[in-house]
Order: sequence, then structure tokens, then C-alpha cells
Amino acid sequence: MTHEKLENLFAPKSIAIVGASNKKDKIGTVLVNNIAKLGYQGKVYFVNPAYKMIGLKKCYQALTEIPKEVELAILAIPGKFVYETIRQASGKVKNFIIISAGFSETGTAGKKLEEKIEKLAREKGLHILGPNCLGFIAPPVKLNASFAAGMPTVGNIAFVSQSGALAVALMDKARKEHLAFSKIISVGNKMQISETELIEYLGNDLRTKVIGLYLEGIKDGEKFLQAASKVSLKKPIVILKAGKTAKTQIAIASHTGALAGSDEIMSVAFEKCGVIRANDLDEFLNLLKLLSGYSAPKSSQCAVITNAGGAGVLATDAFKDKQITLADISAASKKKLKKILPSESSVENPIDLLGDAQEDRYRAVLDILHKEKIENIFCLLTPQGQTKVGQIATTVIEYSKKRDLNVIPVFIGGEKIAGALENFTRNGLVNFSTPEAAIGTLEKYRVWQQFRQDNAKIAVLKIDRTRQQQAQVIIEKALSEKRKALSFADAAKVMELYGIAAVAYGNVTEKNINDLKIGFPLALKVDSDLILHKTDQGGLRLGIKNEEELQKAFNEMQKSFPGEKIIAQAQVDKFAEIILGIKRDPIFGPVIVYGLGGIYTEIFKLVNFLLAPMNLKEIETQILKSKINFIFKGARGQAACDAKEFSKILLALMSFAKENPQVKEFDINPLFIYNDKQGALAVDIKIIF
Amino acid sequence: MTHEKLENLFAPKSIAIVGASNKKDKIGTVLVNNIAKLGYQGKVYFVNPAYKMIGLKKCYQALTEIPKEVELAILAIPGKFVYETIRQASGKVKNFIIISAGFSETGTAGKKLEEKIEKLAREKGLHILGPNCLGFIAPPVKLNASFAAGMPTVGNIAFVSQSGALAVALMDKARKEHLAFSKIISVGNKMQISETELIEYLGNDLRTKVIGLYLEGIKDGEKFLQAASKVSLKKPIVILKAGKTAKTQIAIASHTGALAGSDEIMSVAFEKCGVIRANDLDEFLNLLKLLSGYSAPKSSQCAVITNAGGAGVLATDAFKDKQITLADISAASKKKLKKILPSESSVENPIDLLGDAQEDRYRAVLDILHKEKIENIFCLLTPQGQTKVGQIATTVIEYSKKRDLNVIPVFIGGEKIAGALENFTRNGLVNFSTPEAAIGTLEKYRVWQQFRQDNAKIAVLKIDRTRQQQAQVIIEKALSEKRKALSFADAAKVMELYGIAAVAYGNVTEKNINDLKIGFPLALKVDSDLILHKTDQGGLRLGIKNEEELQKAFNEMQKSFPGEKIIAQAQVDKFAEIILGIKRDPIFGPVIVYGLGGIYTEIFKLVNFLLAPMNLKEIETQILKSKINFIFKGARGQAACDAKEFSKILLALMSFAKENPQVKEFDINPLFIYNDKQGALAVDIKIIF
Repeated sequence: MTHEKLENLFAPKSIAIVGASNKKDKIGTVLVNNIAKLGYQGKVYFVNPAYKMIGLKKCYQALTEIPKEVELAILAIPGKFVYETIRQASGKVKNFIIISAGFSETGTAGKKLEEKIEKLAREKGLHILGPNCLGFIAPPVKLNASFAAGMPTVGNIAFVSQSGALAVALMDKARKEHLAFSKIISVGNKMQISETELIEYLGNDLRTKVIGLYLEGIKDGEKFLQAASKVSLKKPIVILKAGKTAKTQIAIASHTGALAGSDEIMSVAFEKCGVIRANDLDEFLNLLKLLSGYSAPKSSQCAVITNAGGAGVLATDAFKDKQITLADISAASKKKLKKILPSESSVENPIDLLGDAQEDRYRAVLDILHKEKIENIFCLLTPQGQTKVGQIATTVIEYSKKRDLNVIPVFIGGEKIAGALENFTRNGLVNFSTPEAAIGTLEKYRVWQQFRQDNAKIAVLKIDRTRQQQAQVIIEKALSEKRKALSFADAAKVMELYGIAAVAYGNVTEKNINDLKIGFPLALKVDSDLILHKTDQGGLRLGIKNEEELQKAFNEMQKSFPGEKIIAQAQVDKFAEIILGIKRDPIFGPVIVYGLGGIYTEIFKLVNFLLAPMNLKEIETQILKSKINFIFKGARGQAACDAKEFSKILLALMSFAKENPQVKEFDINPLFIYNDKQGALAVDIKIIF
Repeated sequence: MTHEKLENLFAPKSIAIVGASNKKDKIGTVLVNNIAKLGYQGKVYFVNPAYKMIGLKKCYQALTEIPKEVELAILAIPGKFVYETIRQASGKVKNFIIISAGFSETGTAGKKLEEKIEKLAREKGLHILGPNCLGFIAPPVKLNASFAAGMPTVGNIAFVSQSGALAVALMDKARKEHLAFSKIISVGNKMQISETELIEYLGNDLRTKVIGLYLEGIKDGEKFLQAASKVSLKKPIVILKAGKTAKTQIAIASHTGALAGSDEIMSVAFEKCGVIRANDLDEFLNLLKLLSGYSAPKSSQCAVITNAGGAGVLATDAFKDKQITLADISAASKKKLKKILPSESSVENPIDLLGDAQEDRYRAVLDILHKEKIENIFCLLTPQGQTKVGQIATTVIEYSKKRDLNVIPVFIGGEKIAGALENFTRNGLVNFSTPEAAIGTLEKYRVWQQFRQDNAKIAVLKIDRTRQQQAQVIIEKALSEKRKALSFADAAKVMELYGIAAVAYGNVTEKNINDLKIGFPLALKVDSDLILHKTDQGGLRLGIKNEEELQKAFNEMQKSFPGEKIIAQAQVDKFAEIILGIKRDPIFGPVIVYGLGGIYTEIFKLVNFLLAPMNLKEIETQILKSKINFIFKGARGQAACDAKEFSKILLALMSFAKENPQVKEFDINPLFIYNDKQGALAVDIKIIF
């Protein structure tokens, strides 16, 4: 779906309203009023077999009757007529909005109808927004192609909503809070145009500076990641993602799979593609406001100036665990500050101007901080008896116009600061009502800016056809034998292809039992895809110290599992135990899971997720930020394990997942790793299909 | 400080303003206007040697000249005159507010002056608010005894602020957001009247329903805990505590001490005494509003009704990890709901009334939920095209008047809901702008209500004089020998007094080395208070398997540590390793610290804090909620360790800390505990003074 084609939908030169009406409370009537009376300059046609005229304008009996070109048709007719209407017009009209409900949101029959329309759209090259949506609004061209009332202020925020009702509420709230829009788009059931297509489209939309989305689901994880990763390099994408507690539909039996929480994977995905995740509705609006009006912070350095010590303390608290920090003020500047401020003032950051501070103190300090090249300045103010709020606001505005400064006012109060707040809005400044909100919002903007700097190149995961073929031979053979999993021996062979070594092992038979070449101590295991939980059933014997014990254990195991293969494994020392796996996420596909193994696995749940594609460097960065980074940082004075080496294993697993799509579940549990340059060793491997 | 005495300060029958003035911008002038012109009904006297008259009223040369009784004197004079003014009047006037600055906030000299005044107050039985404060406001008696402007609405919120500037800002904000007050008190330097005295006083104030405090520090932790624990049983205390990142002043050398974070201890203290902690300014105001207007929720059961699916999904998310929950709707009620709602509505909780819902649907559902006896109902609304917001608001208000219902509106929007919001305010309802804020705030109210139910009786820690004496004999002896710590043998004896057993041990000498009666394997240790870190210096030898190895190790150790005692300890198996300690918190005194021991101590930092006094049951509850609860819950199918047994050890430590105040640092590291009814064993004990 190219930008040009969607531009025909969202900035059409002509529109037909199918289901146009003049009856009160009809959606068709609202559409007529919104499109014809709010300033849209294109051609408008009405279609409804029940009318000859609507107002003073001709009403056509059918879309196909309109003699001129129609770039967009908006359907506000009963759901059951939608398919046929589109089919008949599909030679003439290429863009549609289906306002009508009655599709996949209603159950199986509706879902089938939606699929039929989707197929038609694919065959005829149509672009369709909806169904079951509100439509869209494009304030720059004065087009309200929705049944929501009014025309929002023209601005640079594009807002995409999966909930029409929430879009309406936010539009109402936005008016009060002075948010201004380039587009507001309701996506409804996302039959054809989902968040992904819109992120791509709005990424190229010159009027849009920030893309905000309210989403309840993501349609295609892989495509979403691709689109968002690309667009995030150009402009910020803010998502309020609802449905955190929704239970995943697919039951997962493997160990690593059961540890996965799908909302955590959503967060990992957002972080991976640079999406800013808003935690709640308030933060969502705060982010849109700040990102709309301010430049992305090029540095993490911040200053806080305040006329109230208490507010300064709250601000200091808010910097806890943040990437943005309170800058150290240089000695030279401190000296200057001391000269101009009363002796009881604090010249440490936050800079306390004291309760009787007026415009002159704010100005003098802003000047010094500007010369000090501190980019981000939070200007706190409480309206005390003598505070001339208006004058101080004017000074704050003056400094906000300097190109290299982000001046963020945090005026706390009610009536006494109302005038200042209006003045801020008029001048494009965003006032925050608490230091916590201001600092938390700038933090997310800064993290995004950092993402852009660090991720100029997007990783690509190449497929190694030779290796893939070799792995597939082993897997296909097992499948042809109707096995549900690979034997350890086969799994180890596959892993070897991907550069992951297993501990020394060998088949044990009556013949070779005295000539194993593995050494003691060793472990004896039944190697069968039918006996996955070996320990429970006596299929695993550890710590066999000599040939006598080996013979005894072998005899017993043969008796308990007649006909099954038995293998011996070297029982080696470890430095640390890792669990590794692949979880098939319903949205994002294969997710690499890794965490702390051993007895604490389930207690501490130190599990981490990675989404392909990534390159080695990115993986290493993630490992060093992960919940098990202590293993790779050398805690307690011990040598660290090699994060680079471990990155290679995780990258190999990404390739393995991609090259072997039949694999449903995958676990290495445990993988032994070492801090003395020894390579990692897989002790148990499950490959299930 | 009794309630009656403070009542003389906060509801005085007569007031003298010392430093009264009529010059513009003088604090004395603001005070004159605030006290004389806003409706205060008591007697008012002006004092200032520079005036004979202020307005039409006589001005006295000194406090002592006033012929009638003066219940409260407010001092707005230079700091250096304050002591003398109070001293001279102290026979006549018993209550003072020192508005003046120039005391402990300015440094050493100011601190001395403040201490002098405090001593005078103690000797003469005075009650003094401040110094360096704004004063206070008591709207019910129309008294503004502060230099902040205006008279807030009369209500049931008492607000105490350690920052005058923040109090002013919040008063201004409060007017806009319709908060109404019983008292607003600025505490300044808290010389004599701190949060503790005010919590006690406001706890007995019949006009106060909720006590809100902005604090940067706590003056006396133990007294604060006592007062807050008592008052929390009657009414909620909400605290916004700033200074989360402040570094504690006291360097602590012991292992457990170094793991402690003082803000975490603050949170533990608040939880212990039922204080509701607000995370930021916005949440603080939301809490005050909700608690002021609504009854404490008797149950955790909540329902959400909404005309926007998206808002319902956000609400569901907000219940994640909360104690309050979305109630299950009974089958009978669901049947009723299905009858009255359109077929596409959801009758699961959240109940989705659909976008075209009007007053009738809200009413019908509220009625069913009321009959279902669901106490807490969140009414969500977004103003869609056809939504009659005003009518629905009226219905919500009607149901909010039912005695057994907490109806909380969450109307999301701007202009379209403005009228409804005003109507809510007039009727004592609190509208939240997001579901997250509404649900998060009610959650904290519910947690407080639960605290009241669970903590009707406050624990008392009794001192066991006999045991105390026996422990003190051992400690005093070591002190008299100028030792800085107890030897292991002495420490073990002290612990035995408190019912905590150590592993079998004995002194090793050349004579008894072949007759130790400890058994192998054993550990050999230098037992000296000078060699605290034994491992580093070769003063610890583990795994000694026989007499030969013992003799060799003993000889080497004697050589390395000539003249030092050497002990042998049985080297026993463990089930789990615990670290235990006492940290002396600068605010709350002895804090019991316990956590996971062994190699993961520093990596996982699973540390927990307890504050005395507690009873066994309370300690057990905390253990089972702690970060190491898995040990006492039997993870991985293993038998659990006995939480009751461990509670006894922690209670013993509380008594130990109280009965032996010389002990500066205390560690048991490790304590071995078992899941097979064996008693716990202390392996190393440090008692440092």
C-alpha cells in the first residue's frame, strides 16, 4: 500500500456519501453535515435510493450512477448491503470507508462477510478503512469524513484509534488542552488498513510530527515491527496499548514458554522498534503535547529552577532511575549565580530562587543556564503572595524561543496561574501540573532520541540455505516417522549446525557399554520423544561413578523402558546454568527467551525476551541490560562470562527459529556456561514439532 | 501536648499580631488583613513599637502591655528579637506562631537560637508553631492566621505542609479542584510541633475526616509510628513524602546495613502504621478528594460500566496487581442485564452499554448492580454524538446518594462534560479524568480500610529485665576491655539468651585439640573482634576432614595470628541461607533486616525490613509477603521452612535491639534454616558497638 494510494483515501478530490440522509440522528445526516458544511473544498456526491434531492443537491440512486470521478466513497448503509455496493462500484471507485458495523466484531457470520470483502479488495486493488469505524478527520484540508462532531485545530499530531468512542472523548479533551491535529483516524476492525499501514503512511506525511495510537491489538507483529522501526527513525510513535491483562489464547507446554507474559513481549517489541509506550491516558496526552511542541532533547542534561524548595525536592525525586539527569553546574556559573541570588538561595541544581523571586531572578538564571549550554530547563513556580506570575511567564516564553533550549514550565496552582497557562498555550509551551509528569514525559522523549541515534541501521536476519537444508533433513525424517520431537542425539546434531555444542554423549548398547569414551562421572538417560519428563519416570540416572554402577543402571533402565534408546552423557562442572528457548508468540511469532536456570528458575523468574531480527551488537547490548546481566558482568569478584559468545548463541537461535518454522517448541535446559573461555554446553535439548 | 492545649493554639479566643503593620508588602500587614478582615470572631490585638494606631485600632508597644488575655501570639518580627519577645511574654501568653525565619534553616547560629527557644518553651510550658512557617488557616472558624491569601472552602481535609510555598500552590489548585478544608497548617522548622503532634491533634479533631501531609522529613520516627498507628485506626493519613533520593548521613559498615535503602524503610514504616503514601502531587490531590467525599470501601468488589469499550479495556488493565477486583456478576443479574441491554452489549464486568447508551441504560444497570450488592461502581462515559451527558450525570448522582454504594464517575472529555463535572462537584462526587487514576486511588483507600480491620490492636514489645541483665553483663565486660565487638563465643551466648542457637563450636587449644567433641568436617576460625573479615586474611579454614588436617591448620593459624583465640565449628548442611541484621536508621532507630543469604545475596538483593513493635502474628504475615516468602511456601515441591519458627527469631531480634541499645551493628550471616523441623543455626554472628 503506497503512500500515494492512501493519500487518495485520506486527501480525496471527490467524495460520495453512500447512505446520505437528512433525517435527524441518522449517521448519514451527520456525515452530510460534516463533509459539506465544515469547509471541505472537493466535490461531494450524495447516494441514497430513498432520495432524489438532499437539501438543494441531487441524490444519486447508486454509486455507479455518478457520472464524474469519485476518489472516495463512505458507506453508511446496513452491513448486509456493503459487499454488493463495493463490488458494483469497484471498477469506478478505489477507496472506501465502511462506517457500517455488523462484521467480524459480531461473530462468525460477520467475520466471513468481512473476509469476502477483503478478498474483493485484494482482487480489485481497493483501499478500505474500517469496517465498524468512525471514519477520519483531516483538519489541514478541513475534511471531517467521520460521524464525530466538529473540526479540531490544525496541528502536527496524527491520532489513530482502535476505539471510536475514545477518539471522540480525546477530541473533546484535546480542545480543552489545546492539542492540534494533522489527522484523526478511526481504524475499526482493521480489515485492510491497520496500524502498520497507517504508521507507514503517516511516517511520510509532511504535516505529521508525532504519531499517537490507541491500540487494543496488533494485527501483524512482523510487519508492524518493520514499519515502526523505519518510521521511528524519522518521527516519534506513541502508543497507548490496552489489554495488558488479556490471557494469551494459546496454551504452551514448554518450560520457557510458560514463563512468558505477552504484555512483557509487547513492551520488548515496542522498545525494539523505538515506540514510546504510554502507561495510561494522562501520560499519552502529556506525551502528545510535549512531542508536538518541543524538539527532541539532544542531551540528557537538565536543570530545574524553582521559587519553592518543596517543588524542587519533588523534582529531584522524579529524576530517580531516569536517563535524563540533573546537570552539574560549573563552578564559574555557580559563582555568577551566587552574585545575583540572595545568600540563602541554593545554587546547586535544582536552583532555588526563594519564595520572593520575581521575573529578574528567573531571567538571570535562565541566562546563565543558557550560556552553560544546558539544553532542558524545567521552570517551576508556585504563586506565592508577592509572585508576579504573568511577568515570569513572559520571561519563560522569551527563553523558550531560543533555538537550543527546551524550556518546560511547571507552574503549580489554580486561578492564580490561569493567565500564565493561556499565555504558554498561545506560544506553544506545554505546562505540566506536577514536576513528576514533566520529568517523566521528557524522559520518554529523550529515550526515543537515543534510540534514533543508536539504531540508524536496521538489522537483517539472513537465511543460510545450506544449514537450513541440513537441519530440515533431520527434522523431516523425524516427522516422516511420526515422531513429535527429536531425540537428544538428533537435536544435538541440529544444534551443532547452528554452532551450539552439547555435552559429550553416546548411545549405550550392551555391546559398547565398556567402551564409551565419555569418562566418569556420567549420566544415563532414556532418549525418547515419548518420555519427555525423564526424571519423574526413572529415565534419568545421575552421578554414575564406575563401570559397575553403569552396568547396573543400564540393566534397570532397559527393563523399565524396553526397546528405547539409552544414552550416556558426561557429567561436567558448570559455572552458571542458563535456560534458553523459543516461544511462538501469537502476534510477533518466534520470540527468543533466555534466563537464569537451575533451582532458582521459577522463584526469581529472571527471564528476558528478544525479537528477531537483531545483529550481534544489539543482542550483546540487550544481554548487558538484561535481568541476568550479573553473569556477564562478573559479580562478586568472579570473572564474567563472555557476553559476545552468548550473543552468538542467541543469534543462532533466531536463525534456527526462522529457518525451521515447523518447530513449535524449543528448549535448552540447562545450558552450562563458563567464565574461563570454555564454550557453552547444552545439557538437554528439546525440539518439538 | 494534649488536644486541649493545641486547641488553644489552633482555635484561639484572642490573638495578638506582633509586628502588625499597614505598610504595603509587609508580612505584618498581610497578617492584619487576613486575621481582621476574613471573618474571625475572636479578639485581635496589634503589637508594634513603631505604631500607636493601625487603622482605627490601638497598637500596643509590647505583648506584655495588652491588659486582657491573649491565647495566641503570632510573631512576624526579625528573628533576632523572637527569643526575648517570647521570654518576656511567657508568663502571660502560652501559644505562639513564629512566622520569622533565621533559625535552624540558616546554619549553626540559627540552630542554637532555635534550641534556646525550644528549651524556654519546655520550661514555661509553651506551644509554638514554626519557626520559619506560613502560619495556619482554620476555615471553620474563618481564621486565616497565615500570610497566605484568601479563605479556602470549609471542608473535612486537614492539610499539613513542610513547604509553605507548596501549601500556597496547593491551596490555589484546591480552589479550582474543589477541595475543602478543616485546617491548613504550615509547620516550618518543626521546632516543637511536628507531624507527630499534629497527627495526634487532628486525629481528635471532629471536623477533620482525612489528614494529608506533605513532608520532607520525619522528626522522631518512634513517636511518629505510635501516633500514626493510633490515628490510622480512626481516620486516613495521606502523606506525600519527598526526598526519596536523599543519601542517608550515616555510613554503615555492616553487610545487611549496606543493603538498606532509607526510602524503602520509610515505605515500610508507612505501611506499618497504616499511612497511605502518595507517589506524586497528582495522586496526593486525588487521594484527598476521594477520601474526603467517599466512605471507605468495605469490600474489594468493584464494577465498571461504560459506554466506550476502549475505556472499559483500560479500566480492566488498571485492576492488574490490585487488591480491589472486578466482581463476578451473578448469573441471575447477567440474565437481567441481557434483557435490558442491546444484544451486542457485554454483560461481563466491565459492562459495556455501547456508544448509543442513554440515561435509561445507566440507570437500569446501576439498579441491578445495587441489588447485587456490589459496593464500588465506576461509571465511565465518553461524550459521543448522541450522548445526553447531563441526564446520565444526574442518574449517577442519584445512585451515589444510596448509603451502601460508592459511585465514582470517570467522564472523559472536555467541554462536553464540563457541565456534568460541575454538577458532580456540587453533589460531592469526584470525577476522575482517567480509569487508571480512579481505580488506583480507590485501591489505596481500600488498603487503608483493610489495615484498620486487621490492626485493631497495636503490638507492644515487652522488655525482659532478667534476660537484658544477662546480656548486658557480657556486653559491658567487652566494653570494659575496650573491645569493639563480641567474640563469636560471647555473641553465641548472648544469642542463646534470645533463643537463637549457634552451630556447635568450641575453643581450640593445644591441649584440647584432640578432644573437641564437634566431629568432622569442621571449620577453624580466628575468633577476634579485630579480624572481622576472616576469609580475606586466612583466618578461616573450611572442610577440615580429620585430626591431621586440623592440627596442621591450627598450627598455621596460630602462626599467622599469634595470641588470638581459635575456635572450631561444626560444618553442617543447610537447607537455605539467610542473612539477618539490625540497621540503626537515623529516623526510625533499630530496623530488623532479613534476606536471602549465600552467593546470590548481592545479586538479587532480596532484603526485607521490619520495624518494632510487632507481634508474632504480624511478623509471620510479613514473612509470607516478603521477597523471600518462597522459602516458607515450599517452592519446587520441597517442604517449606517454618515461618512461625522464623518469626520467633525476628521477634527475639527486636527485643535484643531494644534491650541492648549500645549495639551499633548486628549481623547473623549466615543463618542456616531447615525444612525438616530442625532449629535454625547461626553460623557467624557479629555484635559491634
